Formats: sequence, C-alpha cells, structure tokens
Amino acid sequence: MTVNVIFVGSLKESFFAEAVAEYEKRLGAYCKINNILIKDERLSDRPSDAEIATALRKEGERILAAIPPRSYKIAMCVEGKQMKSEDFASLLDTAATSGYSEVSFVIGGSFGLADEVKSACDKRMSISMMTFPHRMMRVILLEQVYRAYNIIGGGKYHK
Amino acid sequence: MTVNVIFVGSLKESFFAEAVAEYEKRLGAYCKINNILIKDERLSDRPSDAEIATALRKEGERILAAIPPRSYKIAMCVEGKQMKSEDFASLLDTAATSGYSEVSFVIGGSFGLADEVKSACDKRMSISMMTFPHRMMRVILLEQVYRAYNIIGGGKYHK
Repeated sequence: MTVNVIFVGSLKESFFAEAVAEYEKRLGAYCKINNILIKDERLSDRPSDAEIATALRKEGERILAAIPPRSYKIAMCVEGKQMKSEDFASLLDTAATSGYSEVSFVIGGSFGLADEVKSACDKRMSISMMTFPHRMMRVILLEQVYRAYNIIGGGKYHK
Repeated sequence: MTVNVIFVGSLKESFFAEAVAEYEKRLGAYCKINNILIKDERLSDRPSDAEIATALRKEGERILAAIPPRSYKIAMCVEGKQMKSEDFASLLDTAATSGYSEVSFVIGGSFGLADEVKSACDKRMSISMMTFPHRMMRVILLEQVYRAYNIIGGGKYHK
C-alpha cells in the first residue's frame, strides 16, 4: 500500500519535522509514505475573506492536479466524519481489499481546504472538533496511520 | 492563572519534549504552567485486566494526592465532552471569572484514568474519538491552551 500525504506548506517547527520522520520510519514496515508538498499562498497579516477565498482556490487547483487519481482520497476537515482508531483501521483495510493500492490524505493549509477539493475526495474525515495547527495535523495523521496498521496486524501498540 | 498539567509517566520522545517546551514558552505570556509528574506503574508486556486495574488504582491514588485541591479540575478522557477551540477558550475564561486561580488538567497513562480520578474532577473533556499516545496528548493540550488564551486575548493565532 502507498499512503500519499498531500499537505499545504512545509513544516517550520523542527520538532514536528522530527515527529513526522519518526512515524515515517516506523511506517516503513507497513506501507510506502509518499509526501506531496503543495506550495502555500502568501497572505497578508489580516487577510480579507476575498483574499482567503482566492488563496484556497489557487491551493485547491494545485492539490487537484497533484492527487494521484486512482487513489482512495480522504479530505481532512473539521466537518468530516469522526471515527475511533479501530474504525479508521477498518477503513484503510477495506480500501486495500477493495482494490485500492493507494490512499491519499489531503491536509489543507491555515485556512483549510477549498470545497472543490473536498468534493473531489471519496471521504471527509475529522480528527476533532478542535482546531489544530495544520502542521501538527501531519504528525497526528501519521500516528493514526501507524496505529491503524498496528491494529490490522494485531500488534500491541494500540491498547 | 496557574495551569497545572498532571500526567502519568515522563516524555520519552525528544520531539514531544521539545514541542511541550515550545508551547510552555509561548504560554509564559498568559499563565504559569505547573507540571506535575506522576510515577507510572510498570506493567508486563501483555498485562491482564487485573494487572491494569491495579496499576490504574495506584496511579489514581497518586494523582488524587497531587491535584491542587482548590483548582478547577478537568479529566482528559475519550468519553468526555468534545468542544470547539472557541468553547474551550470560554471554559477557561469562565473558570477564571468564577474565582478559580488554578485550572488542573489530568492526563492518564497508557491505559487511561481510574474512575475515582474522573469522579473527583469537575469536568471530563475529550479531544477526539481516536486514541492518541498520552505523551502526544500533552502537546495537543498545551497547544489548545495556548490557542484558548490567544482567542481570549483577541490575538491572530486562531483563524
């Protein structure tokens, strides 16, 4: 299985980068992680709604051009479906047994994802009602993917 | 305001420790963070339910002895109430204006928290339906506390 992680803007904090590297290393036993960095739009300090909408649209176009088309696509957004780690593991397992050899997770930037991106995905998934930094979201997502493969494989990481 | 963070077991991963240090530094402008480390019980590789129950009870006794008694106490547990970051900010703000000068967050260890601890708290709060490593939870919690104070102060961190 290949897991594509599509994200907007690079990691500024070294500790998030180290955490991502650690979970990628651990995931090496289960899947191939393919990181796809989407260039983020620069916004002013107090951006207007129109400025934000334009940035989301431009980032969205880049995302849509970059998502591997035959993958099972999951948009990470606060209004998506929340699930337990066990059910997330089932989702990944079902995608694999349904013939998908790739899963793509799409994480937006500071202002989220354009509706066009959400509509183009097979599923919308939420981690929390709370707002997290999008860079922290990469860490949380990879930890959950690692946990999911450990659940599928009957490991003892998930208790 | 003093924010007590009561947690079971120390941080093994350097990147989580660095993330905690960074958010503590940022929070210095808003509150005093008081870390209270509770010694964790050592468990066997495949612990029985009885072994887990005993460990939770012993850790629970230590937690109850360590929680600052006059603080507003929040137990972090998956069955607690989820809320948006804005509502979490209101919760902290309301605690402060209700006369509390301390808030205590209690994060359990690998197997969670004893019921006695949950019952002794004023509120049960959940971040997600998913299971996170308890050490990552410290990072997530501090980021949300930082976000909350930024929301209360009208800052531009939360978008």
